[in-house]
Amino acid sequence: MKFEIKRDRLLDGLSDVMKAVSSKTAIPILTGVKMDVSAEGVSLTGSDSDITIQTFIPAEEDGKQILQVSEGGSIVLQARVFSEIIRKLPTNEVEIEINGNFQTHIRSGKSEFHLIGLDPLDYPHLPDVQEDELFTIPADLLKTIIRETVFAVSSSETRPVLTGVHWAVKDGELVCVATDSHRLARRKTKLESVQDEEHNAVVPGRSLNELNKILDDSADPVEVVMTSQQVLFRSKNILFFSRLLEGNYPDTSRLIPSEYKTQVTVNGRALLQAIDRASLLAREERNNVVRFSANGSDEVEVSSNSPEVGKVEEQLLAEAIEGEELKISFSAKFMMDALKAIDGQDVVIQFTGAMRPFILRSALDDSILQLILPVRTY
Amino acid sequence: MKFEIKRDRLLDGLSDVMKAVSSKTAIPILTGVKMDVSAEGVSLTGSDSDITIQTFIPAEEDGKQILQVSEGGSIVLQARVFSEIIRKLPTNEVEIEINGNFQTHIRSGKSEFHLIGLDPLDYPHLPDVQEDELFTIPADLLKTIIRETVFAVSSSETRPVLTGVHWAVKDGELVCVATDSHRLARRKTKLESVQDEEHNAVVPGRSLNELNKILDDSADPVEVVMTSQQVLFRSKNILFFSRLLEGNYPDTSRLIPSEYKTQVTVNGRALLQAIDRASLLAREERNNVVRFSANGSDEVEVSSNSPEVGKVEEQLLAEAIEGEELKISFSAKFMMDALKAIDGQDVVIQFTGAMRPFILRSALDDSILQLILPVRTY
Repeated sequence: MKFEIKRDRLLDGLSDVMKAVSSKTAIPILTGVKMDVSAEGVSLTGSDSDITIQTFIPAEEDGKQILQVSEGGSIVLQARVFSEIIRKLPTNEVEIEINGNFQTHIRSGKSEFHLIGLDPLDYPHLPDVQEDELFTIPADLLKTIIRETVFAVSSSETRPVLTGVHWAVKDGELVCVATDSHRLARRKTKLESVQDEEHNAVVPGRSLNELNKILDDSADPVEVVMTSQQVLFRSKNILFFSRLLEGNYPDTSRLIPSEYKTQVTVNGRALLQAIDRASLLAREERNNVVRFSANGSDEVEVSSNSPEVGKVEEQLLAEAIEGEELKISFSAKFMMDALKAIDGQDVVIQFTGAMRPFILRSALDDSILQLILPVRTY
Repeated sequence: MKFEIKRDRLLDGLSDVMKAVSSKTAIPILTGVKMDVSAEGVSLTGSDSDITIQTFIPAEEDGKQILQVSEGGSIVLQARVFSEIIRKLPTNEVEIEINGNFQTHIRSGKSEFHLIGLDPLDYPHLPDVQEDELFTIPADLLKTIIRETVFAVSSSETRPVLTGVHWAVKDGELVCVATDSHRLARRKTKLESVQDEEHNAVVPGRSLNELNKILDDSADPVEVVMTSQQVLFRSKNILFFSRLLEGNYPDTSRLIPSEYKTQVTVNGRALLQAIDRASLLAREERNNVVRFSANGSDEVEVSSNSPEVGKVEEQLLAEAIEGEELKISFSAKFMMDALKAIDGQDVVIQFTGAMRPFILRSALDDSILQLILPVRTY
């Protein structure tokens, strides 16, 4: 195997697949990155056996020659050392040559590295995902859906299925739900092109976070393929495979209250900042709980109290307040996460009492719903 | 005590004094910041008993009103919480009021904080430094001197005096020396205005690092005052006190070789990058050692070898090579630190053999000298 490649483009590809490579792995070869070179281009693969990322660097891109292949072949190289070397090479022209026994030579300018490679035949195969795509979605919309839901997954392994986001496809709609049993995020999305099938899957939160980092903020289409054990996200030059979580995801629809006793409409960004300030003192205590009250005026009050440090109170003018007076306490963190997901728009908050879950929606957009369980303090 | 102040300016002042405040302190009141308010302005003090920083915010600055004092007074507030609160206030107008029992009210917009303050009489006094200044030096030159020496102090407490930089003033010259007994950095500076006295002090490396962060990159004068136990750096609105280290600093002058057998002149930045690349593999081993050889040609070679990972070799065109052929090994980290201190200029490296300390100087500037002990590998 022997080829020349532009350092910058190789580095971009490596930085994508490195997101799947873990230094802590029970399978030593997975600390490496697999490189397959043919006349068409270079394919790079990284995996931690849960997530597998493959990226393809074409020989020519936008009319520019990216690489020149003298001889094709495959090799596995230590991912961290290899990408550090490529990053620090003195010129943008890199020559990589493998000779017998997986000896790898990397040359650039007057610098020459010899790396000891590993046998590519020992590298695991890609997951077997042969199905047609279930639906296609623009990359930026997919990123938004991830951002609006993934923060609410559970970080505890007590119920492993809650560490993932439940994706359900039915009647041309994708419904994504995440919950850690103290709060819930739900996002509905109409799909443009979808097969007429029902599908259910629980995608690990970590996989979605990594996918979010790799995808561009563009409207480029991403094809989503699902099998019973794997999901594959396929964009122009990237294949992103993730294992799915096993187990039954709880039915969350009955948790969401259908009526309310108090409804507050308020600017989301102003409320976020007020909660952030109130949480400065709440954080000194363990629970990080702030209080919220709507008592008949056109303002709501956000407050918190830490006996050792002090207290804070803030009034916030609401757009509208309907229904009963209310005092309620909740986790400042959960509230801030939910408000960030709704992202600066006016929010409608519907309460059914101080000890009942309450929901937040965007005033403009019905597709996103956030639910939070209150904390007993009053 | 009651006054109004611009949030931005208060935050700047707090961020300076916070550099002296540690959350881990045996003296609880030192987790606080002291605020003294008079008609002239607000003085803020933070300390960890080794370093004390006082900054003054004048009532008026550049013709702009910064604060309005209704009633003067003093208070100590929890530094971390106080500065976080100020950072997150909703408007740039802050009102601070203390009433009986150190109850502190902070108001901005519709936000009101109540903090429980501490008695300012319990806060330690500033170190007693009444002497006249020893010399005055521009802030940017002082920062350069710190940057060129402080990295070479010892990080081990085995010989505490080596964790500081030795400052000696004699014959109108300041000589700063730092060594961890494996390498040494020396910087000489002619002083413009200096008292006709000899002075010796060992300034803790940590103090110099914090001072470096606080000083502006300007030619504003900094007055340096020394007593037997303290050094005070005094700039326009900042007093920076540091405890000095006790104990005799070793005589380092006899360590510096006065002759050489091989002299190499090379571009500092190119050598730094070559060493950085070679150290990529060296780092995989424990010692991070790279090899350097000058073998009669007009090039030097930098190389390193890690049996598990691979090896690297690189040729570098030298400006000049004089004297005997040479093979030597040294710590890549020490070499990179030294080259960064010399900062991109051509460097002259003088060797007296593979097992003897060697020195680096700037080809343009005689004021800075770096010395490194080699490592035995050949």
